[in-house]
Amino acid sequence: MKCEIISVGTEVLTGDIVDTNAPFLSKGLISVGMDIAFRTTVGDDSDKMNEALKLASERAEIIITIGGLGPTYDDFTKYETAKVMGRKIVREKKLEEWLKNYFSSVGYTLTENNFRQADIIEGCEIIENHNGTAPGLIAKNEKNTFVLLPGPPGELKPMFFESILPYLKKFTDKAVVEKTLKLCGAGESAVEDKLHEMMVNTKNPVIAPYAKPGEVHLKLTAEAENEKEAIKLIENTKKKIYEDFSDKIYGEDEETLASSVVKLLKERNMTLSLAESCTGGGIAFEITSVPGSSSVFGFGAVTYANEAKVKIAGVSEETLRKHGAVSPETALEMAEGIRNLSGSDIGLSVTGIAGPDGGTKEKPVGLVYMGISLKNNSYTKRLMLKGNREKIRESTAKKALTEIFQLLKENGNG
Amino acid sequence: MKCEIISVGTEVLTGDIVDTNAPFLSKGLISVGMDIAFRTTVGDDSDKMNEALKLASERAEIIITIGGLGPTYDDFTKYETAKVMGRKIVREKKLEEWLKNYFSSVGYTLTENNFRQADIIEGCEIIENHNGTAPGLIAKNEKNTFVLLPGPPGELKPMFFESILPYLKKFTDKAVVEKTLKLCGAGESAVEDKLHEMMVNTKNPVIAPYAKPGEVHLKLTAEAENEKEAIKLIENTKKKIYEDFSDKIYGEDEETLASSVVKLLKERNMTLSLAESCTGGGIAFEITSVPGSSSVFGFGAVTYANEAKVKIAGVSEETLRKHGAVSPETALEMAEGIRNLSGSDIGLSVTGIAGPDGGTKEKPVGLVYMGISLKNNSYTKRLMLKGNREKIRESTAKKALTEIFQLLKENGNG
Repeated sequence: MKCEIISVGTEVLTGDIVDTNAPFLSKGLISVGMDIAFRTTVGDDSDKMNEALKLASERAEIIITIGGLGPTYDDFTKYETAKVMGRKIVREKKLEEWLKNYFSSVGYTLTENNFRQADIIEGCEIIENHNGTAPGLIAKNEKNTFVLLPGPPGELKPMFFESILPYLKKFTDKAVVEKTLKLCGAGESAVEDKLHEMMVNTKNPVIAPYAKPGEVHLKLTAEAENEKEAIKLIENTKKKIYEDFSDKIYGEDEETLASSVVKLLKERNMTLSLAESCTGGGIAFEITSVPGSSSVFGFGAVTYANEAKVKIAGVSEETLRKHGAVSPETALEMAEGIRNLSGSDIGLSVTGIAGPDGGTKEKPVGLVYMGISLKNNSYTKRLMLKGNREKIRESTAKKALTEIFQLLKENGNG
Repeated sequence: MKCEIISVGTEVLTGDIVDTNAPFLSKGLISVGMDIAFRTTVGDDSDKMNEALKLASERAEIIITIGGLGPTYDDFTKYETAKVMGRKIVREKKLEEWLKNYFSSVGYTLTENNFRQADIIEGCEIIENHNGTAPGLIAKNEKNTFVLLPGPPGELKPMFFESILPYLKKFTDKAVVEKTLKLCGAGESAVEDKLHEMMVNTKNPVIAPYAKPGEVHLKLTAEAENEKEAIKLIENTKKKIYEDFSDKIYGEDEETLASSVVKLLKERNMTLSLAESCTGGGIAFEITSVPGSSSVFGFGAVTYANEAKVKIAGVSEETLRKHGAVSPETALEMAEGIRNLSGSDIGLSVTGIAGPDGGTKEKPVGLVYMGISLKNNSYTKRLMLKGNREKIRESTAKKALTEIFQLLKENGNG
């Protein structure tokens, strides 16, 4: 079934807002077998909106609009859709009542403008909005189905899952299931090399590799008569890929490298502590973004100053004087120091030069040392990273999490 | 001058990639007075690409395409543009030579496919790509100018600034200048109230307020015959707004709250240290994202565990036992402890419940205490924040940076 998306809003068109709604919707539409050929973005301009709606109604069966349902004079979506459909706009009594109740409950005064949100396209279906005041609308005629959704992501997303997705499922006789396998510690070309034959010979699911910073994602997309069949196809291929990459696949779909590390630490009943210099707390921030991470991570130090390396991580002043802050010796003492202080199983440190200043010929921008301290073993790694300050910090954090992941994988298998 | 953007790529259309190029380009185009009416997104599909190009060539004078210039079989942009223009594709000798040299310099073997990147539209202008192998192209006929740009942001952005923006400036006889003033510690409605009259009466620059998490941005857009005049218009209005909000405006345009805090610390010759619980290093990470922050920030502690609060920040075990980890007493001792350890001028701490678990009736999810320790003064603040774990952590970091900003502002004026 052909489907088009129209994103409405001057802020979106002018680039003041990055449109994350349309990608979200696209993924949802594809999951129920919709075929998207075009996406159009228009500003809050009734003529342009009309033009875009007309064009989409000729090219596609289902048209989904995002935004322009607000109460102000520059919200045109309902009115222009009604025009294109040759329908009237009517004011819905029930919505009027609901708006009155809503505004009195939150203590705001209703203005005449607000009642525009009770205007609907004659004969349409009203979709309740549990997170805002603009209801969604579904209006059908012989040729098209128009689905009008509110623009704020916090309103659009729940409405899509609650009401629109189940509605659209009825249109299609096929199911599309996606699964993303996430790998760390392997380059895209190495993954492609190993999977080449499978990628060429497997048509359903389609296997597509995507290079991400420090990671490779393999996206499997299967199509079948129903969801169960599609999932079965995915599972078969997934099993084969796991056989080749069991030590590299850290997670699936919404899982992150940090969430996988936390999960593995819990499984192994191990704890982690961190002493960060160039990443400035970035690794700790990622680890603690995972709910429940407090059971495996308790101690983090941002030892930006040499004094902090001494006072918190217990690095000796002599080491700093002799080898400098960015050295394997300092990295090792930082890792050992934070592990001793915390009593954790793993102590990890990073110290490096993120730039843009501070580099020398011997120690250029991008040079990072990572220290790892375990109960019976300690070692360091030298990294030479490329890019600007942001990129170097991001790569360092990714390398550190990858190191912990691999360490835990080996620990579990050994 | 009417202008349209076409974003090309299946990954963009299906939502696997969020399109940040188009917003970037839109802002750039507006800055040289271009009028954007539509943006279209199409996949790697030659027919759809052709359809989109034809339509855009009828609606606009300048058409800018993003992506589809790669060497593989599904890169169609040049070929379809040539068709729509009724031009031939020719292989450019100079580009062939350049590609050979480039690939041999990085040690890769050239495949036949790679030479597709030496294909150009007959009679077009070639725009050098200093960050990749796909050159940009500008092709003109009587009706339209087609500007073809590569898709990777790291190639598109520098090419736009270096070559495309200067080229487009020639088309327009007006200049548009934008300036964003960024405020913290004030709500959108309060800002609008205070500026209402100015916003209604000032037509050039237009003043538009945008609510951002924990901030309000005021965007001024001025149009004039030349850049100098437009800047003058902006400066006059800016001055008036500064009079009303001098204590709230933390920066302009690309400045962030963290960069402003670092700048103020340097100006005041003061240093900061942090003890973070619920934000898990997020505040330190933001501060250290600013180049040169090491001169004002040296000590950060991520005291996720109670033991870390004791061992690093010197919180007394009795305080933890009596009042709990999330309490004003603990927050205060954390701030004082990290300030004493580091010898910094300001010690700031946060401790709270970010959820989703760990909340109680007395101490619900979203409760955060912030502690501030100065040489002659210490105090705490109680925050009650809404949203999920991510949102609560983000809001806490924003509140903490806002607190330091205001503290430094007062310090400077007092």
